[in-house]
Amino acid sequence: MNANENKNKMGLKQVLSAVQDGLFSAEDFIADCFDRIESREDEVGAWQCRLSREAYLEQYRGNREFFEQSPLKGLPVGIKDIIDTADMPTEMGSSIHRGRQPVDDASCVTLLRDAGALVLGKTVTTEFAYFRPGKTANPRDLTRTPGGSSSGSAAAVADHMVPVALGSQTAASVIRPAAYCGSVGYVGSRGEFSLRGIQPLGQSLDSLGLFSRKVEDIELLRGVLLRRQNPFDSSEALKPAKVLLCTGEAIGETSADMVAAIRQVESKLVAEGVEVIEPDLGNWLSELVAHHGCVMAYEASRNLAYESGFPEQLSAPLKELIETGLATSRDDYLASLQAAELIRQQLFERYSDVDAILAPAAPGVAPEGRDKTGAPHMSRPWQVMGLPVVTLPGLEDAQQLPLGIQLVGKSREDDRLLCMARWLESRLS
Amino acid sequence: MNANENKNKMGLKQVLSAVQDGLFSAEDFIADCFDRIESREDEVGAWQCRLSREAYLEQYRGNREFFEQSPLKGLPVGIKDIIDTADMPTEMGSSIHRGRQPVDDASCVTLLRDAGALVLGKTVTTEFAYFRPGKTANPRDLTRTPGGSSSGSAAAVADHMVPVALGSQTAASVIRPAAYCGSVGYVGSRGEFSLRGIQPLGQSLDSLGLFSRKVEDIELLRGVLLRRQNPFDSSEALKPAKVLLCTGEAIGETSADMVAAIRQVESKLVAEGVEVIEPDLGNWLSELVAHHGCVMAYEASRNLAYESGFPEQLSAPLKELIETGLATSRDDYLASLQAAELIRQQLFERYSDVDAILAPAAPGVAPEGRDKTGAPHMSRPWQVMGLPVVTLPGLEDAQQLPLGIQLVGKSREDDRLLCMARWLESRLS
Repeated sequence: MNANENKNKMGLKQVLSAVQDGLFSAEDFIADCFDRIESREDEVGAWQCRLSREAYLEQYRGNREFFEQSPLKGLPVGIKDIIDTADMPTEMGSSIHRGRQPVDDASCVTLLRDAGALVLGKTVTTEFAYFRPGKTANPRDLTRTPGGSSSGSAAAVADHMVPVALGSQTAASVIRPAAYCGSVGYVGSRGEFSLRGIQPLGQSLDSLGLFSRKVEDIELLRGVLLRRQNPFDSSEALKPAKVLLCTGEAIGETSADMVAAIRQVESKLVAEGVEVIEPDLGNWLSELVAHHGCVMAYEASRNLAYESGFPEQLSAPLKELIETGLATSRDDYLASLQAAELIRQQLFERYSDVDAILAPAAPGVAPEGRDKTGAPHMSRPWQVMGLPVVTLPGLEDAQQLPLGIQLVGKSREDDRLLCMARWLESRLS
Repeated sequence: MNANENKNKMGLKQVLSAVQDGLFSAEDFIADCFDRIESREDEVGAWQCRLSREAYLEQYRGNREFFEQSPLKGLPVGIKDIIDTADMPTEMGSSIHRGRQPVDDASCVTLLRDAGALVLGKTVTTEFAYFRPGKTANPRDLTRTPGGSSSGSAAAVADHMVPVALGSQTAASVIRPAAYCGSVGYVGSRGEFSLRGIQPLGQSLDSLGLFSRKVEDIELLRGVLLRRQNPFDSSEALKPAKVLLCTGEAIGETSADMVAAIRQVESKLVAEGVEVIEPDLGNWLSELVAHHGCVMAYEASRNLAYESGFPEQLSAPLKELIETGLATSRDDYLASLQAAELIRQQLFERYSDVDAILAPAAPGVAPEGRDKTGAPHMSRPWQVMGLPVVTLPGLEDAQQLPLGIQLVGKSREDDRLLCMARWLESRLS
């Protein structure tokens, strides 16, 4: 890649290296990001609010010494507008919170700022990270949905406006928009990160998520968020020995293109000497989809207690979610939690030698129209089990629309999963 | 009890009944609470900030119709100052957050307000719900600690300033102050309640807690917090058939008075026909204490990322906690989480027919001096397993200082635990 063009398409670590090596400056890169935003934002609509170029440079230059010595060099990051920021409103995609100005940064924001990231802006979220879309378009085809709920973060990274962005996932809110827009997406294991200052939807489901263009950038941000001594440390890419393949039909509706894409990845894996097995048939995947829905409705209806008081400002799907949650018996809710945990244990006992699960990250390419964000079923099984997941781009349909796949790891084995994802990424590109 | 005296010593449900029956008005009760606060607060120091009598009555009278028709009738509640409130600062016991004014109510606060509770004020917390005490004294002996971290909530309820208060527990922050001050305390199972707006310390450990004078009042508030259709619904008191007795020595230092108190409860149980067994000896309880400490340090050091930037405003114990957490290897942290989960599973497999665990809620009576809040080890085993716990008052040492005991239930069986606690409460009083 010529250092003087398309800098903003580079991955975060690539940019940091180039800046370190003097190929270009952080300000050069920042300028390219703003060029891109200014030329595309009217169409893409990734940002709920953001710094102007001038305001950004004022912050950068006002603290230049700190940024130059920092790991992340003052490079821009986007923050999903469900994550609190002390210097910008956090409106959660709802008119109920128009202009809501939190008093604190979320801890993930603090950690990124401490490492020298500069918050360029807040990215569009669906209403309370649930279904009602914001203004964002899919940067690969403006007539299509970017997916949700982390719509703006996925679009901003995929459209080369910023190298990385934060999101969150309760159902499919990182994995699906990453798949639809063609970025890398990562959802941490349940309990992995501090969620302080991230507005919750379901305490048994919520996870922090990250978007980037390269897996290695996820690993860097993960190191920052875990306060690792050297966030640049990383292990060798890891070829999995054995992969469990879920083609998608056992989870729910899957397009023929997606099935073909998954089979294509299977062929690549087999050609590389990876053993690929398919799970015994059974209803466990569709059962997990149902359990996820039950837990989400029950918990969301308590977490959104305040918002329940403003029914006229809630979308019909959100009102329905809250009503469903309030009508769900406690026994059914607890049964779903227990069943999901049991299936998780049985899955990893039965397939103890499997290194990762491969599955579609979405039912297919991004659907046409922007009134919905696509179906979330592909993520529900893994999310209700609290597993770490990476979306990998690289595959496309005949119209060059992204077909994202996901690699799922064991609970809390996020580092190992990312090493495998980095290996697979190199085989898909 | 004569309706015209000591109203403020009554339990919440008793007061609500009396108001309903016209024995006295909500305003009469409120007046008694303020009388008590005004006569005692200078010595007890339960409140970080609070409404004046006039401001309270203005709010009450300004919305009288709503309060009169509400389940909780406009009666006062105290909120631990680690829980966000939109109309009062939330300072977390730290000068770092002096005057910090959150933009939202925590969801638990919203739910209480919606049910007609009126937030009288914020109660003193130790620094970030960890060790450094605030100004609160033990209302039973002003030279002693009230325990922490929910110091003000425990003291305010025990001293009859308010009938109920909210707290939170990561180690022993509800169970211990309830024991030291002589109130009922309840810690919900992990995941049980929305923690939105409660500043976190350890995401694998944090639980919402409640203080009251009667177990039935905990059950009422629990119904409100879970958005139950009728929060006044309750089941019959339940005599446990079989109780596992942990006398305390297997957990850590225990006073002779406390051992005697626990044996006294054992005798009462046996006399009532309850089978009481003691666990096989082994190190599992002390191992759980260590695992709890490891998880807490690791997670707190990430949750307190922002505050880490102000070392000169942190107490030595908190700095040490953060340093320990940052020096804890990820492998050790994960091993502690896994070990605790394994012990939990084995415990309830081995003792599947046990209805509840009985143990000291603290090592003994509240220690003298107010520079420390007492040792937390008695709560660590149950907290790291995510179990629901109730502190019951009623026992005392020779100086009439409270010796609190705790009843521990199985994960998510909070309702059943509370029915048993209500039964045992009637036997202790």
